[in-house]
Amino acid sequence: MQWVIGIDVGGTNCVVGAVATDGSRVVGDHSQPTLPARGADAVIADLVTMARRVTDHVRAADPTAEIIGVGVGAPGPLDITAGVVLLTPNLGWTNLPLRARLAAGLGVAAALENDANCAVQAECWVGAAQRGRKVIGLTVGTGIGGGIVIDQQLYHGASDAAGEFGHMVIDMNGPVCACGNRGCLEAFASGVNIARRARELLAAGTPSALRDLVAGDASRVTAELVYQVAATGDPLAQQVAEDTARYLGIGVANLLNLFNPDVVVILGGVARAGEQLVEPLRREVARRAFRPAVDACSIVPGALRDLAGVYGAAKAFLDQRRAGLV
Amino acid sequence: MQWVIGIDVGGTNCVVGAVATDGSRVVGDHSQPTLPARGADAVIADLVTMARRVTDHVRAADPTAEIIGVGVGAPGPLDITAGVVLLTPNLGWTNLPLRARLAAGLGVAAALENDANCAVQAECWVGAAQRGRKVIGLTVGTGIGGGIVIDQQLYHGASDAAGEFGHMVIDMNGPVCACGNRGCLEAFASGVNIARRARELLAAGTPSALRDLVAGDASRVTAELVYQVAATGDPLAQQVAEDTARYLGIGVANLLNLFNPDVVVILGGVARAGEQLVEPLRREVARRAFRPAVDACSIVPGALRDLAGVYGAAKAFLDQRRAGLV
Repeated sequence: MQWVIGIDVGGTNCVVGAVATDGSRVVGDHSQPTLPARGADAVIADLVTMARRVTDHVRAADPTAEIIGVGVGAPGPLDITAGVVLLTPNLGWTNLPLRARLAAGLGVAAALENDANCAVQAECWVGAAQRGRKVIGLTVGTGIGGGIVIDQQLYHGASDAAGEFGHMVIDMNGPVCACGNRGCLEAFASGVNIARRARELLAAGTPSALRDLVAGDASRVTAELVYQVAATGDPLAQQVAEDTARYLGIGVANLLNLFNPDVVVILGGVARAGEQLVEPLRREVARRAFRPAVDACSIVPGALRDLAGVYGAAKAFLDQRRAGLV
Repeated sequence: MQWVIGIDVGGTNCVVGAVATDGSRVVGDHSQPTLPARGADAVIADLVTMARRVTDHVRAADPTAEIIGVGVGAPGPLDITAGVVLLTPNLGWTNLPLRARLAAGLGVAAALENDANCAVQAECWVGAAQRGRKVIGLTVGTGIGGGIVIDQQLYHGASDAAGEFGHMVIDMNGPVCACGNRGCLEAFASGVNIARRARELLAAGTPSALRDLVAGDASRVTAELVYQVAATGDPLAQQVAEDTARYLGIGVANLLNLFNPDVVVILGGVARAGEQLVEPLRREVARRAFRPAVDACSIVPGALRDLAGVYGAAKAFLDQRRAGLV
């Protein structure tokens, strides 16, 4: 059987696994901390070690296994054609030829793709967006990003920079975003900003079970905790979740009016809240976007969770090889 | 020589002309008021008469001329596959089989396309966006709309509803838009709302040459007049033009971050202001969007003016015929 090694490089963790070329399964997947402060060489050495371990695992299980290549998903901006990471503040990398480094380290062909694009493409391939033809994937995690897949092909834009959905201004007088603009979607609804809004309500004295759960240390409030506590009926957490659905609803309604997708798939850490996040989001979008766009579109949580990046990196290798790019 | 009749149906005027199938020229073009209150039958009868007049004109000039079809651009929402205008409040049409009616009236094959899509596709074909591969066209007129062209193909979305750029919320607490949401781009920067903002400043007592030009009747202030007066250095009009560039700049910067186009072409009545509109818009976008997206993109005024719709309707016929749709 043929396999592709999928590598998902995140600011916190790296995940590596072997993906069957028909997308039917991932084997040997494991995760370890990225620890980017050690520098790119150390991180790449770890990725090579992890990929070799996965390869050994596959070969032990299937003596006829053939590893045909490796795909790696990394935060952007990237030059995909050149296989170079241009700049990733989270990792401290600049103009890093990651594709060539992994190909040399592993002795197989390699492909590089944006991490959010990988996750969205994975959901289109074997996840929650398989029936979609015009798919928007919105990644809601520490930040907000995403990807566009048209007729199963990733849409990269003119310079591999499409899909920065977090940096769509929805309130020109809103809070300052990490990007310098005011009122970007990310400044309201990323994991970091969901937690910030909860902390602001706590600081204002709003009663909540959150206060005891973090033993009075508001810095320990996370988006995940907010959704857990909201599920128990906590009014502060429910208010934060409701506001989040409204902000994301404005952003997703914009995307429906602009792009008229048939599937919007919600990914990333915050999307673990599942229907608790997506159900009120659907209501907001239905209230805001044009009817023909609303009627044409399903809004669904992703199905692949932590493995979306691994599946998608492998798919990126298969797609780029088919396109003659690698 | 082969020709396609292009018909541009607007709420105010209809324009009809014969377009050479290589896009090299339009002949016999003329325009007349739509007068939609007379009902769809009367408007369609006029379109047929106008198209016959154009046909006579072409045949008089070129005895070997062959009219191979007719393309019509109309305001949406449409069902392009069925050739039906679903709903156009401006024209009062509902579920009108415009394609079949024109084909029957003229005895040739016909194609229907969204009017904004036609204008954008025309600029890609023979206008200001010819070098673009990922093109956003923004029509700024009475309302704001647009179209997306990827690798010379119109992107329609899942239900022919893509490209409603005017209904992207840029200020969730902003003024109420005609669509019912708050703070859509259109609610700030359409021709109607440019004039509204100028009237509001006049009503607040701001000095301006506009006041005398409209003889104290603020209802006569138009976006066109605002740009004319701004060009003479009038501070109120310059303020309105500057604010317009800021609002459009937020919207276009959003589109760059989402879609990463290589060309944004600005069309519609307000775009007649040309560089007076586009030059400050470029500055706003460069300040707001991500650098790789800004560096990849030219922002240009359209080149085809009143004939964009006619060229684009003819191109829609050629494209839909090639796709086997008509």
